[in-house]
Amino acid sequence: MAVYTELADEELTALLAQYDLGQALSLKGIAEGVENTNYLLETTAGRYILTIYEKRVARADLPFFMAVMEHLAAAGLPCPRPALTRAGSPLAEVRAKACAVIGFLSGLSPKRPSAAQCASVGRALAQMHSALATTAQSRPNTLGPADWEALVRPRLAQAEALRPGLRQAVAADLDAVNKAWPQGLPRGVIHADLFPDNVLFTGDTVSGLIDFYFACSDFLAYDLAVCLNAWCFEGDRSFNLTKGQRMIAGYESVRPLTPGERDALPILARGAALRFFSTRLADWSATPEGALVKPKHPLEYADRLAFHARANGFSDYGG
Amino acid sequence: MAVYTELADEELTALLAQYDLGQALSLKGIAEGVENTNYLLETTAGRYILTIYEKRVARADLPFFMAVMEHLAAAGLPCPRPALTRAGSPLAEVRAKACAVIGFLSGLSPKRPSAAQCASVGRALAQMHSALATTAQSRPNTLGPADWEALVRPRLAQAEALRPGLRQAVAADLDAVNKAWPQGLPRGVIHADLFPDNVLFTGDTVSGLIDFYFACSDFLAYDLAVCLNAWCFEGDRSFNLTKGQRMIAGYESVRPLTPGERDALPILARGAALRFFSTRLADWSATPEGALVKPKHPLEYADRLAFHARANGFSDYGG
Repeated sequence: MAVYTELADEELTALLAQYDLGQALSLKGIAEGVENTNYLLETTAGRYILTIYEKRVARADLPFFMAVMEHLAAAGLPCPRPALTRAGSPLAEVRAKACAVIGFLSGLSPKRPSAAQCASVGRALAQMHSALATTAQSRPNTLGPADWEALVRPRLAQAEALRPGLRQAVAADLDAVNKAWPQGLPRGVIHADLFPDNVLFTGDTVSGLIDFYFACSDFLAYDLAVCLNAWCFEGDRSFNLTKGQRMIAGYESVRPLTPGERDALPILARGAALRFFSTRLADWSATPEGALVKPKHPLEYADRLAFHARANGFSDYGG
Repeated sequence: MAVYTELADEELTALLAQYDLGQALSLKGIAEGVENTNYLLETTAGRYILTIYEKRVARADLPFFMAVMEHLAAAGLPCPRPALTRAGSPLAEVRAKACAVIGFLSGLSPKRPSAAQCASVGRALAQMHSALATTAQSRPNTLGPADWEALVRPRLAQAEALRPGLRQAVAADLDAVNKAWPQGLPRGVIHADLFPDNVLFTGDTVSGLIDFYFACSDFLAYDLAVCLNAWCFEGDRSFNLTKGQRMIAGYESVRPLTPGERDALPILARGAALRFFSTRLADWSATPEGALVKPKHPLEYADRLAFHARANGFSDYGG
């Protein structure tokens, strides 16, 4: 949500000279993404997002993220395409940081997604999984069960301080996931962070899938479990079964789930809630009093965890 | 530099329904301005800046700022024009806050303005003053000499803590300005904050004059003194006489200064430096340790004050 790297005039000029995108007409720092500096850049050739990668994105992972975006755009999905430098690279450098100039996509991110939008995003997710089945790229998931354990177990006292009883509840979530995490489900490259912030719509139609900086290789159904957590709970933290039904039906209209995936959905959803609870808890603990940028509150995901702990099966999610 | 007000989907829809601007295609929070929430809004009718006025802008002043922008745009200056609601108002309301939808202007704000850009901005400033000579609007300057006194005198100890010797130097600046502040110079509506951030260029040509939220009625030459402070000092805080010459010549190519204005320029420039020193000192003192948004450092303006205290006359500024 901030511009960490301010570009000098000559730095922008030197950067654009590496591309075949004409002259800069406008450059506005945008308050998008927590991790990187983003500018909306207009040149004589079109509109782009200029992203400068700050410390939280590992430089070695950037070629993978670029390849995923290129692959999806080439497959006809509404994904932004990195512009290539004259040397043919999707990445350049500015102020000793890596950066990319990525095609701009129109559309609005919903604050309160509708059931129709949940259906559309379910369908788009399955299209993404299908398109990525032909990529040779892979990247391990660096926020998997062992990482939730390492992030959450040492912070159970902080969790208890947020809400009495949470120490025991979350320890039970960790135990359950460690014990019952599935094996052998269909795998592939997943988005892993497809929140409403990262999807653009024109009406109820998906017009953009963005922010691939958590993309990795993992269970495909885990990606659906992330989306069920991110899209189908209401502001009062209740699960909207209609939205779950629409999202799963949208997904299955493109790629039907296997019986194993259906059975695993409750534990995958519980794990996905742990994943976001774990990083929110760590960010919450690490943020000093009085900081202007407030991290997202972990309790939102504690309530989702409680829902998933009670779930009996696929049908509780609308399946 | 932040998005303070996040708009819900239905709030944006309800807001746009008050205008004749079509449907929203894109909405990006932009990191521009310290005071307000700004979005770059694209609709089927064009591109706009949606500004939501947060607490630092007095609601009663907004009609004046809107009228100034409308007047300048109507006079052919490159100023953004507020869109009117169907009811004919340049202002609307969202989440109990005032807001405006203002035409988007292309162009880049220079980080290190060239001498040619200083000439252009001098000319544009005089064109703005000439165009505003026909407005009936007025607003007192709420950041004038009495306000600098009230902001700085109680904080002289903080100033001394920033740099030894500053208590005495700044007290002398306040005394000099109180004693020698001019009377009877030509007055009118001025921008009062025309920093490089607030000017857009295409090459060396001014393509946008923006952010009128300090506009007020005061000496015209004081506005030029603000610009000399804001544009003609280098990164090492030295005064670039060539840039001063070009700016003054640009200004005088449209509106020649009177002998009284020329004589008053050193004290006006000293006052203008005090104005920015005073608010930066107050913001600096008020910002908690560890805050993510660092205020601008007051010492930049302490060095300008020292330059102005030594200046002998108009020629020291390039006149």
